[in-house]
Amino acid sequence: MTTISIHPVRESAVPQRSKFPLNQWYVAAHSSELADKPVGRKLLGEAVVLFRIGDGTVAALEDRCCHRALPLSAGTVESCGLRCGYHGLLYNHEGKCVEIPGQERIPSKAKVSAYHVQERDGLIWIWFGKPENPEPMCDAPSYSVHSSPEYVYGGDVYHYNAPYQLIHDNLLDLSHLGYVHLHTIGGNAKLHMNAEMKVESEGDFVRVVRYMPDSVPPPTYSAAYPFKGNVDRWQEIEFRVSHLLIWTGAVDQGTDAMDDPQRGGFHMRGFHGVTPESETTCHYFWTMATNPIKDIEEVKRKVLEQTELTFDEDKVVIEAQYQNMIRFGPKSMIDIHVDVGANRARRIIERLMV
Amino acid sequence: MTTISIHPVRESAVPQRSKFPLNQWYVAAHSSELADKPVGRKLLGEAVVLFRIGDGTVAALEDRCCHRALPLSAGTVESCGLRCGYHGLLYNHEGKCVEIPGQERIPSKAKVSAYHVQERDGLIWIWFGKPENPEPMCDAPSYSVHSSPEYVYGGDVYHYNAPYQLIHDNLLDLSHLGYVHLHTIGGNAKLHMNAEMKVESEGDFVRVVRYMPDSVPPPTYSAAYPFKGNVDRWQEIEFRVSHLLIWTGAVDQGTDAMDDPQRGGFHMRGFHGVTPESETTCHYFWTMATNPIKDIEEVKRKVLEQTELTFDEDKVVIEAQYQNMIRFGPKSMIDIHVDVGANRARRIIERLMV
Amino acid sequence: MTTISIHPVRESAVPQRSKFPLNQWYVAAHSSELADKPVGRKLLGEAVVLFRIGDGTVAALEDRCCHRALPLSAGTVESCGLRCGYHGLLYNHEGKCVEIPGQERIPSKAKVSAYHVQERDGLIWIWFGKPENPEPMCDAPSYSVHSSPEYVYGGDVYHYNAPYQLIHDNLLDLSHLGYVHLHTIGGNAKLHMNAEMKVESEGDFVRVVRYMPDSVPPPTYSAAYPFKGNVDRWQEIEFRVSHLLIWTGAVDQGTDAMDDPQRGGFHMRGFHGVTPESETTCHYFWTMATNPIKDIEEVKRKVLEQTELTFDEDKVVIEAQYQNMIRFGPKSMIDIHVDVGANRARRIIERLMV
Repeated sequence: MTTISIHPVRESAVPQRSKFPLNQWYVAAHSSELADKPVGRKLLGEAVVLFRIGDGTVAALEDRCCHRALPLSAGTVESCGLRCGYHGLLYNHEGKCVEIPGQERIPSKAKVSAYHVQERDGLIWIWFGKPENPEPMCDAPSYSVHSSPEYVYGGDVYHYNAPYQLIHDNLLDLSHLGYVHLHTIGGNAKLHMNAEMKVESEGDFVRVVRYMPDSVPPPTYSAAYPFKGNVDRWQEIEFRVSHLLIWTGAVDQGTDAMDDPQRGGFHMRGFHGVTPESETTCHYFWTMATNPIKDIEEVKRKVLEQTELTFDEDKVVIEAQYQNMIRFGPKSMIDIHVDVGANRARRIIERLMV
Repeated sequence: MTTISIHPVRESAVPQRSKFPLNQWYVAAHSSELADKPVGRKLLGEAVVLFRIGDGTVAALEDRCCHRALPLSAGTVESCGLRCGYHGLLYNHEGKCVEIPGQERIPSKAKVSAYHVQERDGLIWIWFGKPENPEPMCDAPSYSVHSSPEYVYGGDVYHYNAPYQLIHDNLLDLSHLGYVHLHTIGGNAKLHMNAEMKVESEGDFVRVVRYMPDSVPPPTYSAAYPFKGNVDRWQEIEFRVSHLLIWTGAVDQGTDAMDDPQRGGFHMRGFHGVTPESETTCHYFWTMATNPIKDIEEVKRKVLEQTELTFDEDKVVIEAQYQNMIRFGPKSMIDIHVDVGANRARRIIERLMV
Repeated sequence: MTTISIHPVRESAVPQRSKFPLNQWYVAAHSSELADKPVGRKLLGEAVVLFRIGDGTVAALEDRCCHRALPLSAGTVESCGLRCGYHGLLYNHEGKCVEIPGQERIPSKAKVSAYHVQERDGLIWIWFGKPENPEPMCDAPSYSVHSSPEYVYGGDVYHYNAPYQLIHDNLLDLSHLGYVHLHTIGGNAKLHMNAEMKVESEGDFVRVVRYMPDSVPPPTYSAAYPFKGNVDRWQEIEFRVSHLLIWTGAVDQGTDAMDDPQRGGFHMRGFHGVTPESETTCHYFWTMATNPIKDIEEVKRKVLEQTELTFDEDKVVIEAQYQNMIRFGPKSMIDIHVDVGANRARRIIERLMV
């Protein structure tokens, strides 16, 4: 066995898992990302290669050939494994090297680490357990919206040059809609800042609910749904450590109850998987589902277009915020009325990292 | 109050003011830069946002919302202050938060630092005092050329990836004109290297004067002024810690005395505000004024175009010089005859930083 | 003499020559690179400027004016030396300043270091000796292929963001051709992985020979030479610390002996100068010579085009490999059958660095 010494700048040599909440399923990819090519992605500080073999099984391995360290994500997917692009070593979905071209004997050390993955409802989840017990303690979360006939959806993955918790903060406090997203899903700023907000939490779970009865529908809503005039509008945000579910929408004023899960009207249901890449960067896997009553493709297209614009705006704000936090160093921040939910989520994360 | 811990790479967390001469007015911006948008700029290691409110008052605040640290320079200017682009907190020109949308009580801690600024003759100056006495000890410098009817002028601000003193060196030694600016304001190289040079200094002030009697006018001069043949040419450089004033020009040979401030001929009067951004980078605020005797706009355009070319050439040289200084590390440099003025300026800066 | 203090990030202030094998000639440039402009290049951690004066002599100096540290490579070549682009100091080919414009006396300290260089067969070689004995112990290597009438050749220099030894590894193990260069010089992957390989070494020299008798010629070969069918193909790799010589080719099956240096058929003779820039980066000077039997320019063009494609592919692989080595930190690597030659070369380098 050869150790080739390398030099400077190690990015994250010693994986520092304890910097993130462990014993959690995190989103590693959208199902749609894994077709015929491997995907290399750093998740919770670990360089992982994701791929789907011939029978549809998804695998996640250490992204490094055990021979000369080429990223396996630069290799090619075959029906029964992933082949390195340098000297052709073939790995199965468990990380075992099953072929070394030109060499009969395969050393027992010819293998790489494998991660637990589960595919559910269009999402690939990866489990990061605590070192003393790396086995999953439960199944990956389901997300029925993705398979519901009522909804159509689309999504994307964004790379953020900012720590994952800044995205939590952003999503748990939708009062920023009035300032950041004025022209899309926001609408009137004062309306948002003055909306009544209810915050509940239990265990590793935070729920923030805001109602804006008898309000003017924002541009995205009006474009997608034939509201008659003012609307009763709701925002329900559920924080679940590795992801958030946000159900926003509106009914014509005075029709359905805003807190009835069977309410009609216009719905936007967002899935937000926020997976740390490192302590200072993260991946943001989002989908947005909506319930068009006609012109399905057209409404879906418009809603996704507006969603993308909105999430682009958030990315600009959050990355600028983080750069400024770096620039000014640790300084205390004042809290205002909208921060209750975000602060509870921060306390949960802090507790889970012990 | 929440302290959100952040991670790596702090750029300049603890402002290290003592790295620069303090108790000085530095140029922060051209007046023309402050219209309806805020300007974010790091000055002497401090991240500052500059803006102009409805009554014309210019303000300079810490560029960081006290709520969640977004740069205030990403916000919007209103008639009576600057509003943060995330949750809408409004700050007045003294840095006091005067509105938190949706919240009645404004905590006393909701404020950011403000800097002393003065606007004079088309320039915005900012005072950086010593920690024990941050109050300005004098008014910001005037610069009458900008308001003189004899002159027309224009200018710009350049960002330099080089320490500010390398610009001082460059401006205090115009002998480089023959090598760096051969095709614009330079002309004959030997002429410059052999010109007689007089260096005077007193207090925090250095003056370098060079005369080139009976010489061929350089391309920029000939293009701008109907010289009859050879000229008597002068260069007067005044170093004043945070800025330099350079008055160059020429008269037809044998007419006005070169050292008479009332001399005629063709004038180029440069203002050079050199404001450190950090110890290794700086802002260079320059204007160039000239005195056309006809075709005013045309001459102004030409002079500014040539000036810009010239200053672009200097930037290339100085940034390459600095990269090479980094590459080679601290090595002694030999001095030659042209370095007298620059070395005096360096001794002044050194004295002022104690 | 002035010491201007500079600040942060020193790239390689103290040259750490002992990090590389010394007492060696390394390639510094192709002869064709030195026409009327100087070339600045960091070699073994030293910033060097190369230039050719009027009589054809090539010189290599420290790339730093002794006055104000501008890179001399930003200056201009004159018939008897190199002139700095800031204040015009002129240096001769030994690094002595021979003119300071406007100043009569030239201080004895006005000089920069010079390096031993030799130009041979289209290559400029530079000697890096051990500190206690910096004089060359031999002449620079000859390379007769470049002046042979049998061959035509071309080449280039690539900058690599990877340590030089990873290129040695790559070149000493041509089994990667089947995976990395399938569409050019590779051809059948299994063929390469199963080819018999002979490795010899002696002193600072490693020789790897592989024969692939009765095999299908790869695309590049077929395009360049009228083979009748299957071929007897050879690969001879010679490792010589600062450069490698690789002679590959093929004859029609069953004609000339594959190990006869007088063999006919189609030849590709590669010169590979691998010169460290720093511990983590290097320069790769390559040429490829071939022996067209007709359509000389057309075959040369095709062979060079294919070679360039091939070397581009290698660069992608090797730089990705190095990034992954940084990412994962020091981890042991398993060896496979193809690594024998490369591992011997690594042991030679290790021995030479003591």
